Amino acid sequence: MALCYQATPPFKLNSASTNWSSRTPLSLRCNLSVPSPKTLAVEPQPVFTSVRSFAPATVANLGPGFDFLGCAVDGLGDYVSLRVDPHVHPGEISISDITGVGNSSKKLSKNPLWNCAGIAAISVMKMLSIRSVGLSLSLEKGLPLGSGLGSSAASAAAAAVAVNEIFGGLLSVSDLVLAGLESESKVSGYHADNVAPAIMGGFVLIRSYDPLELMRLKFPSEKDLFFVLVNPEFEAPTKKMRAALPQEITMSHHVWNCSQAGALVASVLQGDLEGLGKALSSDKIVEPRRAPLIPGMEAVKKAAIGAGAFGCTISGAGPTAVAITDNEDKGREIGDRMVEAFMDVGKLKAVASVRKLDRLGARLVSSIPR
Amino acid sequence: MALCYQATPPFKLNSASTNWSSRTPLSLRCNLSVPSPKTLAVEPQPVFTSVRSFAPATVANLGPGFDFLGCAVDGLGDYVSLRVDPHVHPGEISISDITGVGNSSKKLSKNPLWNCAGIAAISVMKMLSIRSVGLSLSLEKGLPLGSGLGSSAASAAAAAVAVNEIFGGLLSVSDLVLAGLESESKVSGYHADNVAPAIMGGFVLIRSYDPLELMRLKFPSEKDLFFVLVNPEFEAPTKKMRAALPQEITMSHHVWNCSQAGALVASVLQGDLEGLGKALSSDKIVEPRRAPLIPGMEAVKKAAIGAGAFGCTISGAGPTAVAITDNEDKGREIGDRMVEAFMDVGKLKAVASVRKLDRLGARLVSSIPR
Repeated sequence: MALCYQATPPFKLNSASTNWSSRTPLSLRCNLSVPSPKTLAVEPQPVFTSVRSFAPATVANLGPGFDFLGCAVDGLGDYVSLRVDPHVHPGEISISDITGVGNSSKKLSKNPLWNCAGIAAISVMKMLSIRSVGLSLSLEKGLPLGSGLGSSAASAAAAAVAVNEIFGGLLSVSDLVLAGLESESKVSGYHADNVAPAIMGGFVLIRSYDPLELMRLKFPSEKDLFFVLVNPEFEAPTKKMRAALPQEITMSHHVWNCSQAGALVASVLQGDLEGLGKALSSDKIVEPRRAPLIPGMEAVKKAAIGAGAFGCTISGAGPTAVAITDNEDKGREIGDRMVEAFMDVGKLKAVASVRKLDRLGARLVSSIPR
Repeated sequence: MALCYQATPPFKLNSASTNWSSRTPLSLRCNLSVPSPKTLAVEPQPVFTSVRSFAPATVANLGPGFDFLGCAVDGLGDYVSLRVDPHVHPGEISISDITGVGNSSKKLSKNPLWNCAGIAAISVMKMLSIRSVGLSLSLEKGLPLGSGLGSSAASAAAAAVAVNEIFGGLLSVSDLVLAGLESESKVSGYHADNVAPAIMGGFVLIRSYDPLELMRLKFPSEKDLFFVLVNPEFEAPTKKMRAALPQEITMSHHVWNCSQAGALVASVLQGDLEGLGKALSSDKIVEPRRAPLIPGMEAVKKAAIGAGAFGCTISGAGPTAVAITDNEDKGREIGDRMVEAFMDVGKLKAVASVRKLDRLGARLVSSIPR
């Protein structure tokens, strides 16, 4: 773990109601090149006996934002319940339960060293110099594994926030993202485009990793943005999805995608949904290689646009398809057409949900004071 | 020439005082795929006997904005004087004079078909269906040729605006950009990243060419932005500069430059000069190949940053170096250090100037009514 500093004044996760999205422009920098971990000089004591946190699902890549842009979606995500547990060895954490959708509880390890929530929790405990308190963690998966909705990042984000909050919320957002990144690097690769928006909410641009620099892109608060998420019953072949990426890119495709990425960022900041949708749909580098690996995806995209979506692409590495619109009812119609296309063309059952942009990111949902 | 339509309500160049930068978000679309030129059904009559127009210098590329981003700089540019001339064959244009810096008058053709101002003027005359009036044009070059400051684009922009205005300003901004693009494509390549900001002012992102879509990126009006432009006595070998571009780009460099382009756009819109400078300096694809071809450029960049510039890169294809700062006096200091570095390391004489962002673009500076 790394020494962190912030470009902005210290900025902490103090309560569930903290509205980070009101603070812009925000740029966080964490110097990953410093090898020694940041740890507090004085071990804090717990301020709660237990807390419950939530972290939202995230849509990474966003078409031309491949590997550096992601955003959080509301009402879908993972919960972590964390309590001070005298039966757990001081300075350690135990995972007591994993429950939730699909077969998460079977697939995920309860060994905290091999669990994304556990790794992030341990990282935060190290930063806080926790040596005299043991913790017990319960993970409720609201997100299916391997869906392309940042399942591992949501678990890591919820755990990082829970541990930080139970000890009084002393760490900064950038510390928490670093803890989440440590988890992501072990379970799904060294990328922050899910875990940063899972923690920070809204749209986040990963500007660099060394040092870690994150830019919050504030979508105007007065505008509505709905994501239509359509998750087919299909396991995206992760290795194939990675292998499908081109090694080399032509200059013309590079310039095209770069300009679309710029347009995407401008559209987010200006709240221009039409522009955002168009940019989302415009990737000429990654989506054309990955879409054919998800049965029906190309037809699903066409169906979404045909039904009035502003744009559509693959969420993360898939298989979830994501479309955007400005109206919830319209979102449902778009979702129905996308589900049909997955069935008609891809022969895949799929489930649609319509979600708002999550502007808060990971937060406490309840707590019991000591 | 092509049929154009606009995403926004008709938006015309009506007077020199029109402040376009107050109209955002702006997105213009022109369908280049329609083969027949747009021409007015009824030929307009001149509303002035003569006009004088100005179009600013432009900085294209802006580091990671290679080939799709440019901005205009104030107080440096080309002038066009245009008058109704009964001695010129109706429907035609004659170039009477070319004056100005360096050896422009010797190097530039007075044949309007081979002159960037002439080509743009003819294009606008065609759009306006001018058949019964002859025009005489005089070009005053304020910009040296081949400097990397959009010299040809400034001439084209000034000419396009002058012709449009002498007939009452009937064409849209997108029409004028198309006229400028026709000129650019004949003299320096099919790219709009100089001519669009020369016409529109401020920062402009070229989103696509077919159809042509331009996004104005509004830099906050309350913020100051100064460009330090340092032009060495060196002719950038255009062919070499083009040949230096990589044919293929690695995925990691692509993702890096894309994220920096996104950060650049966000920094412009948020008026974040530090972020803008950092993005400007961050190109890993084009600048590393081109800088070594301009003697001293790498040292000049270091000198600029060392003197407190927020960022520095090559303007256009060079050889001008551009740095940014928020203070005019500081800009002069930075310029002095850059000039020294060009001399010390590159053995090149250079001239520095400090210029504000031009927010207006091409405009009339005087006119004589009929």
